[in-house]
Amino acid sequence: MGKIKVAVLGSTGMVGQRYVKLLESHPWFEITALSASKASVGKKYGEAAKWVIEGEMPESVRDMRIVSADINDVKKEGTELVFSALPSEVAHEIELNMAEAGYMVIADTSAHRMDYDVPLIIPEVNSDHLSAIFEQRKRRKGIIVTSPNCTTIGLAISLKPILDNFGIKRVLVSTMQALSGAGYSGVPSMAILDNLIPYIKNEEEKVVRELLKILGKYENGFIPANIKVGASCHRVCVLDGHTEAVFIETIDKATSNEIKECMKKFKGDPQHLSLPTAPINPIIVREELDRPQPRLDRLAGEPERARGMAVVVGRIREEQALDNGIKYVLLSHNTIRGAAGNAILIAELLKAKNII
Amino acid sequence: MGKIKVAVLGSTGMVGQRYVKLLESHPWFEITALSASKASVGKKYGEAAKWVIEGEMPESVRDMRIVSADINDVKKEGTELVFSALPSEVAHEIELNMAEAGYMVIADTSAHRMDYDVPLIIPEVNSDHLSAIFEQRKRRKGIIVTSPNCTTIGLAISLKPILDNFGIKRVLVSTMQALSGAGYSGVPSMAILDNLIPYIKNEEEKVVRELLKILGKYENGFIPANIKVGASCHRVCVLDGHTEAVFIETIDKATSNEIKECMKKFKGDPQHLSLPTAPINPIIVREELDRPQPRLDRLAGEPERARGMAVVVGRIREEQALDNGIKYVLLSHNTIRGAAGNAILIAELLKAKNII
Amino acid sequence: MGKIKVAVLGSTGMVGQRYVKLLESHPWFEITALSASKASVGKKYGEAAKWVIEGEMPESVRDMRIVSADINDVKKEGTELVFSALPSEVAHEIELNMAEAGYMVIADTSAHRMDYDVPLIIPEVNSDHLSAIFEQRKRRKGIIVTSPNCTTIGLAISLKPILDNFGIKRVLVSTMQALSGAGYSGVPSMAILDNLIPYIKNEEEKVVRELLKILGKYENGFIPANIKVGASCHRVCVLDGHTEAVFIETIDKATSNEIKECMKKFKGDPQHLSLPTAPINPIIVREELDRPQPRLDRLAGEPERARGMAVVVGRIREEQALDNGIKYVLLSHNTIRGAAGNAILIAELLKAKNII
Amino acid sequence: MGKIKVAVLGSTGMVGQRYVKLLESHPWFEITALSASKASVGKKYGEAAKWVIEGEMPESVRDMRIVSADINDVKKEGTELVFSALPSEVAHEIELNMAEAGYMVIADTSAHRMDYDVPLIIPEVNSDHLSAIFEQRKRRKGIIVTSPNCTTIGLAISLKPILDNFGIKRVLVSTMQALSGAGYSGVPSMAILDNLIPYIKNEEEKVVRELLKILGKYENGFIPANIKVGASCHRVCVLDGHTEAVFIETIDKATSNEIKECMKKFKGDPQHLSLPTAPINPIIVREELDRPQPRLDRLAGEPERARGMAVVVGRIREEQALDNGIKYVLLSHNTIRGAAGNAILIAELLKAKNII
Repeated sequence: MGKIKVAVLGSTGMVGQRYVKLLESHPWFEITALSASKASVGKKYGEAAKWVIEGEMPESVRDMRIVSADINDVKKEGTELVFSALPSEVAHEIELNMAEAGYMVIADTSAHRMDYDVPLIIPEVNSDHLSAIFEQRKRRKGIIVTSPNCTTIGLAISLKPILDNFGIKRVLVSTMQALSGAGYSGVPSMAILDNLIPYIKNEEEKVVRELLKILGKYENGFIPANIKVGASCHRVCVLDGHTEAVFIETIDKATSNEIKECMKKFKGDPQHLSLPTAPINPIIVREELDRPQPRLDRLAGEPERARGMAVVVGRIREEQALDNGIKYVLLSHNTIRGAAGNAILIAELLKAKNII
Repeated sequence: MGKIKVAVLGSTGMVGQRYVKLLESHPWFEITALSASKASVGKKYGEAAKWVIEGEMPESVRDMRIVSADINDVKKEGTELVFSALPSEVAHEIELNMAEAGYMVIADTSAHRMDYDVPLIIPEVNSDHLSAIFEQRKRRKGIIVTSPNCTTIGLAISLKPILDNFGIKRVLVSTMQALSGAGYSGVPSMAILDNLIPYIKNEEEKVVRELLKILGKYENGFIPANIKVGASCHRVCVLDGHTEAVFIETIDKATSNEIKECMKKFKGDPQHLSLPTAPINPIIVREELDRPQPRLDRLAGEPERARGMAVVVGRIREEQALDNGIKYVLLSHNTIRGAAGNAILIAELLKAKNII
Repeated sequence: MGKIKVAVLGSTGMVGQRYVKLLESHPWFEITALSASKASVGKKYGEAAKWVIEGEMPESVRDMRIVSADINDVKKEGTELVFSALPSEVAHEIELNMAEAGYMVIADTSAHRMDYDVPLIIPEVNSDHLSAIFEQRKRRKGIIVTSPNCTTIGLAISLKPILDNFGIKRVLVSTMQALSGAGYSGVPSMAILDNLIPYIKNEEEKVVRELLKILGKYENGFIPANIKVGASCHRVCVLDGHTEAVFIETIDKATSNEIKECMKKFKGDPQHLSLPTAPINPIIVREELDRPQPRLDRLAGEPERARGMAVVVGRIREEQALDNGIKYVLLSHNTIRGAAGNAILIAELLKAKNII
Repeated sequence: MGKIKVAVLGSTGMVGQRYVKLLESHPWFEITALSASKASVGKKYGEAAKWVIEGEMPESVRDMRIVSADINDVKKEGTELVFSALPSEVAHEIELNMAEAGYMVIADTSAHRMDYDVPLIIPEVNSDHLSAIFEQRKRRKGIIVTSPNCTTIGLAISLKPILDNFGIKRVLVSTMQALSGAGYSGVPSMAILDNLIPYIKNEEEKVVRELLKILGKYENGFIPANIKVGASCHRVCVLDGHTEAVFIETIDKATSNEIKECMKKFKGDPQHLSLPTAPINPIIVREELDRPQPRLDRLAGEPERARGMAVVVGRIREEQALDNGIKYVLLSHNTIRGAAGNAILIAELLKAKNII
């Protein structure tokens, strides 16, 4: 049986390059179409994309010709599945067109994340939300499945075992986010060297509403989780890897050891189904006082294919200033687990569940 | 009337250099003794100190001979007041010796901050705590007055007007602290470039206990404030200027505008007494979405002599995840307001109140 | 007698902001017009310019309305002198129009630097080249005087006393240039953090040809200096301050001490005429093994108004690999001495010489 | 046949960790002893070494007990070969003791590099210098072979094909060296952020004398190459990877294309012998205008085991300021090819030549 043919929309950007890298010699998927903006259409990928992530551009894509994000262009190569890393100004419409034309669209863009019948998936956390697909199919041939905001993903994974074991009343998170989250040219060096920027547009709002959708239920519609969530988001001078300082109030009292244990034991569908990109442990708990650190921990995750897919949690301790208070620091790779990697894991989940 | 003669203990370190710079042509004080470790004693300051702060070393100190931190050495020049920026391993004993020998010691070290009769002063916040001096004088000829931890100072200043106007129930703070807080050689470049370190030894404990002492009362002893305080402290790749993301729960409900207004109006003794190093506004409120930023705001404070003495607060907004919730971001210069500058302001306050 | 009224074209960019800052309370000049691109025309400067240099925006310009770079717009306020920090795509034409309309234009752009009758001036080095103005006036009412490329200026100043005292046969320079040289958004943080870029477009060519014009003669036309010059230009992760490693071959043999002495003694017209922005010593020689360093030395220059106007030279030593070889490291502030500051010093020179 | 048993002296430092990482699952060598300073002796490697390089510490060494650098301690495990990454203050004596006790010592320290009978080897460049071993064996049982300074290695490799094809008269190099070259704690972050340091102790002298020994001949003694070499060495804010701007004068005229071609074709003994750590191409020539860059190119080298072993050269162009002038920029990983990797390649060469 052949591999599933996939397209990457917005393939020349930094997240697009992550898709290209992560799909290199993927056991289930093969890239048959790469789209980019008009100026690049017709060029070889190797010419159109200025490669900016570690390692060299995979040989297999160097000579592929960039196509437009038009349905017909993408269709030519027998593409079945579409990954969207499109810029936000065009994502909404193109993803919709693709879904209406019958494609399975997996988007890490924000355009459709909050749609009433579109699941917002972290495979370890809320794979049951995929049942929204059946609702969605009532109105179109194809479907859209979305991957959450990079900051939300790491946080949601770390909260899930706590929610399941102790319940959560309140979450306050303060982030220290990497430069790559703003895109390759998003943050000028003059703006951030010997500096930090205590603001990321729309980020705090996204974290709150996406987290509630993800940790909520799907029963003939999405029911947000009943948790109070507040965020303060900041950009720091780090290339990759979002760090988050989390304060939580649990419903049932938990010791820091109990929190550690439930995190260490945590597994989800990707682990049970042995998906190719699933990390053996979605959460890695570090005991050292000074971890996680972005440069040392952002590529955490075993096996090799799952590097950057694990969330690393450290400094788990009780917080007296809150009732049933717990605080910890988490780190996750914002363009792997936080974007392309999570989307690919969603695709693997869909295949394993015979949805594609 | 001549200037008051002062000594700086630990004068060659980074905070020591801040003292030297800030005391250059001070209207009330003049440096008559500079101490450093044994290896430097007898050398000229210009040879012993590798100058690391912006601007050149003041001419007036270049040829001064380093003395030991011994009482007799310091005494020779008629020194009346001693600023201590001593390393923590020796601070406790030397400061005590100095105080017992009759000196007025102003220390930004942590050694005596929590002593039962030693005031821990931010002149704008708790100058009334200076009455502990009378208790202290019962047991020794001289006195010790301490300046708080760098992270605590900015936080306490920002909280004071809120406490006075609305009351505070709970404070949760997540910090992004500058490299200079660890001393010049404290953080290797290999440890922090493209990275952050989510841990600073003893810092979280200091913030909690010092804040409660400062915001508490002195009535025949220190009565800590009745506030729940939690902290998560992190080192980021910024030279100077600690940034703090603060979540608070007030007792009386306040809008973000009311918080802004009370911060803008805030003045304390240094302003009323027109102390030389007092900033016109101890808190500067910025309305831009992306401020404060360390590189742009760390030297805030008017007039010229008060640069780095103001706390800059921005992004003041209401927080739905807390009852009567408010959140904001603050920035203060950790070696000026957070150390040498605050200690000098304490000295000015003592003089203006005729304590020295 | 009133101050001379000046316009700054391209006033909202980083170099434009330097002009605004350096001209704040200038004894001879006052800003009467600030131009920027169409989108900003009509807005207050305080709204149109996102202030990015150290210190706050001067009060005096906050409410000035941005005008277009049109001759009539600029004329309204009685402007006599025009400083151009225009983007290169428009500089050529606008500067020409201004000069033809009778303005004295001082440009730090590259558009007219190599024109046959346009002087390329570093006031300490080749003020005699100003006689080209008389030639230029034959073809238009006004005149253009240009300020060299930022990398060339520091180099030329350091070479001038050597050229005068010993002659120079060959210069090989390898640069480590600051981020601000590429403009505020010129270098993305993702491109340069934990990295350097060994290429700056057109820079090596500019250094060679401009240096030869500056160090050459004007005798009824510019006669380039007879020196062999080679350059290799690199961008490093430093905010401000270009560092250059220079290897030279002198014509007459010189010891490193002789080189130091001639640099220390070096003065030019700005010093003899006591121009307001002239540094007392255009070259500061440091004896420490590890200086100059950009962060510590980029604001060198006395008095206060001349900060960033001195070139700091260190590590002057003999080089055995060359005949009569000398090598040293220099540093100069690329947007002060390397741009706005040098242009203002040119204007001061023109006034002192009664050309304006 | 079993693997050769090796010890790593100075195993907990940054270069020591590179050895440990590069020797993980090495086909020919296995680590049987790890030494470190007294304070660590007896501890498990996993406790004694704070792991600071990318990836996790290999499982195989975590529980190994640190031994002293004493001959008997090292001997116990049947060690045959000793890699020395000792601190310079102790390297001279310990390496000598080891060699006298009969060990084959491969040292990347500078202690014995210039000894009259000790070869200073880059396997691709001067493997014939190994004949000095026979001379050395006259005076002791074991032998010392040394690996050059990190800056010299990349430079020598890039020069070798030019020397062989066109001859070299003069080399002037200006370096931009990485932080790791100074050891993990060598450069404080306060010293280098938004800065560079134009001085590295003894580095320029080492580059000159080592380069001449390496490019020279061994005929009953080392005869230095007849090339004029000058260096200016600078530290920049880059974690790993030394960049060097090279100006050369060839004896026979060469075009930039001829230089490129001879570099691309260059192979040495490691390639002919297919040594495990040999890169397929010791020199990789890049055509892009803005390469090499440290972050993108420092891990160049195929196959997987040879990552960081290739020297990347770019911007090869003719230089008019020199007779037969050529200039280019090179990059090599200072702790892989520049230290541990080159030493391991030497060991592989010795084995392939049946010297061990």
